[in-house]
Amino acid sequence: MFTSDYLRELSDKAITSLTFSPEADKLFAPVRYILSLGGKRLRPVMCLMSCNLFSDKIDEALMPAVGIEVFHNFTLVHDDIMDKSDLRRGSPAVHSRWGLNQALLSGDVMAFIATDCIGQAPAKVLAKTLKLFNTTATEVCIGQQIDIDFEKKKFVTEAEYLRMIELKTAVLVAASLKTGAIIGGASEKDQELLYEFGRLLGIAFQIQDDLLDTYGDTRMFGKKTGGDIAANKKTYLLVKALEVAGGERLRTLRKLIESSPADEEAKVTAVKAIFDELEIRLQAENLAYDYINKAFQSLEQVSVKPDRKSELKQMTVNLIGRVK
Amino acid sequence: MFTSDYLRELSDKAITSLTFSPEADKLFAPVRYILSLGGKRLRPVMCLMSCNLFSDKIDEALMPAVGIEVFHNFTLVHDDIMDKSDLRRGSPAVHSRWGLNQALLSGDVMAFIATDCIGQAPAKVLAKTLKLFNTTATEVCIGQQIDIDFEKKKFVTEAEYLRMIELKTAVLVAASLKTGAIIGGASEKDQELLYEFGRLLGIAFQIQDDLLDTYGDTRMFGKKTGGDIAANKKTYLLVKALEVAGGERLRTLRKLIESSPADEEAKVTAVKAIFDELEIRLQAENLAYDYINKAFQSLEQVSVKPDRKSELKQMTVNLIGRVK
Repeated sequence: MFTSDYLRELSDKAITSLTFSPEADKLFAPVRYILSLGGKRLRPVMCLMSCNLFSDKIDEALMPAVGIEVFHNFTLVHDDIMDKSDLRRGSPAVHSRWGLNQALLSGDVMAFIATDCIGQAPAKVLAKTLKLFNTTATEVCIGQQIDIDFEKKKFVTEAEYLRMIELKTAVLVAASLKTGAIIGGASEKDQELLYEFGRLLGIAFQIQDDLLDTYGDTRMFGKKTGGDIAANKKTYLLVKALEVAGGERLRTLRKLIESSPADEEAKVTAVKAIFDELEIRLQAENLAYDYINKAFQSLEQVSVKPDRKSELKQMTVNLIGRVK
Repeated sequence: MFTSDYLRELSDKAITSLTFSPEADKLFAPVRYILSLGGKRLRPVMCLMSCNLFSDKIDEALMPAVGIEVFHNFTLVHDDIMDKSDLRRGSPAVHSRWGLNQALLSGDVMAFIATDCIGQAPAKVLAKTLKLFNTTATEVCIGQQIDIDFEKKKFVTEAEYLRMIELKTAVLVAASLKTGAIIGGASEKDQELLYEFGRLLGIAFQIQDDLLDTYGDTRMFGKKTGGDIAANKKTYLLVKALEVAGGERLRTLRKLIESSPADEEAKVTAVKAIFDELEIRLQAENLAYDYINKAFQSLEQVSVKPDRKSELKQMTVNLIGRVK
């Protein structure tokens, strides 16, 4: 079995080795830039690990894994335009550095670089791999649409929120795992179990990200906490709080999130106080752990020997519980 | 042989029949809108005609043909953002009607709808069809990049201009024809001959479009002529004029295109007068006809009986000579 460290290196190398036409350096410089900002390479590593459950020929899954990572970065470039986010992983966002038009066009070309990588899946599973990719990419766009629409909605239910993060975040993790399983030669049933593992895990990760933004250790988290609260972002925490709060507390919370005070820290403190009164943190943590437990139950059922699953399990365990 | 009218209807029907997730109407409304604005459906019809040269099973090429049309419309949605064009085919551009963010995201999802259509090519030619599509899509992005970069360049050579339109416009026409040929079961040689036919034709069409904007019959052309001159757009005519003009005439032309006078019509008239002195129109027409002749020479060599080529020839003849 290959370790997650090795697979991350392998993914990084393959990403760095992507070559682009020399005819338009301006087009590809932002592509190289966003791909060089790093990140955990969670998706390609998950794809390769999933392939490795069934096969040692992980090279067959390498370019599709890279394609998924390129697609993920494509969404970051365009989402940062839509969200007017100036920073990405602590560096200037592509549109901040090169302007909107360049971010739009360099993002566009990444969609086809991604698909070209997916197109390098083995011939006998190409149609299925490509179909999964296109379906997933479309779902991610739908998720982003729902997220944008949330901004204008006064009230979002917990179910609506969970569906949004399922589409915007979780299905791509799920598709990464299923892609690896398809290429590794897994049975249909195992492909679906790994998809489900990824889907549940993806939802849990997003809830944890929401928790991190409010309760994370600034030293480990790398940025100031409370950013989501200050920006009135509809996170799981806020959605849940608005759902369970009542009476005077609800009115106070509504007033707080409709305000943009000069003293952001006082606002963050006040909202967090309401979260505490409602035990929102606990509920969010419990929900994330529910999803993680169900994810592991799905992984348990995958019909390969337990020791073949140990790397994937270990990596997952390392990724969770970053809040505590 | 199927007629171009029948194939256009077939393409239109298939485009209208595309179904989208009901979960995000806002995302897909602009997709339906841009696809409903019509146009000649040149690319899908060319794709189907090319397939029909070799096979009567044109249904196998229908979804890939639709995919190429969806891709083409995807580029229109995003190009209109970049070019700040408020109108598309006489109707509001997507970003004018729904805003920039919506045009960006709805455009994005079209890239994956397109690829999903391409993915419905017959299994045995899927890898090749997909590779051609991704390569072409990347080239179209490079063409758009070069076009954007032209705006800031003081001097563009004729060769640079021709390469730009080859990438931005011609390779997609070429790929449409080659896709049909691949799916129709053409030999490698015939696939390349049809690609070349489309590439040369695509360049000729763009030169003719440039001519139309300046010299077109307003009644047939459907919009005011001289728009490119008023906007200082680097068309073939202007590029060529700047290349051959000298001395006082070059200085006058430079001054004109660096100006944004209140009286646009006077400017258009003055620039056209210089074009006339330099016989730019004649040179452009000759060049377009050179490309068309070479295109037909390529089509001649395709190894199917002449009468099978008659529909494709007729359609091409109908498309050219719109200026005269």
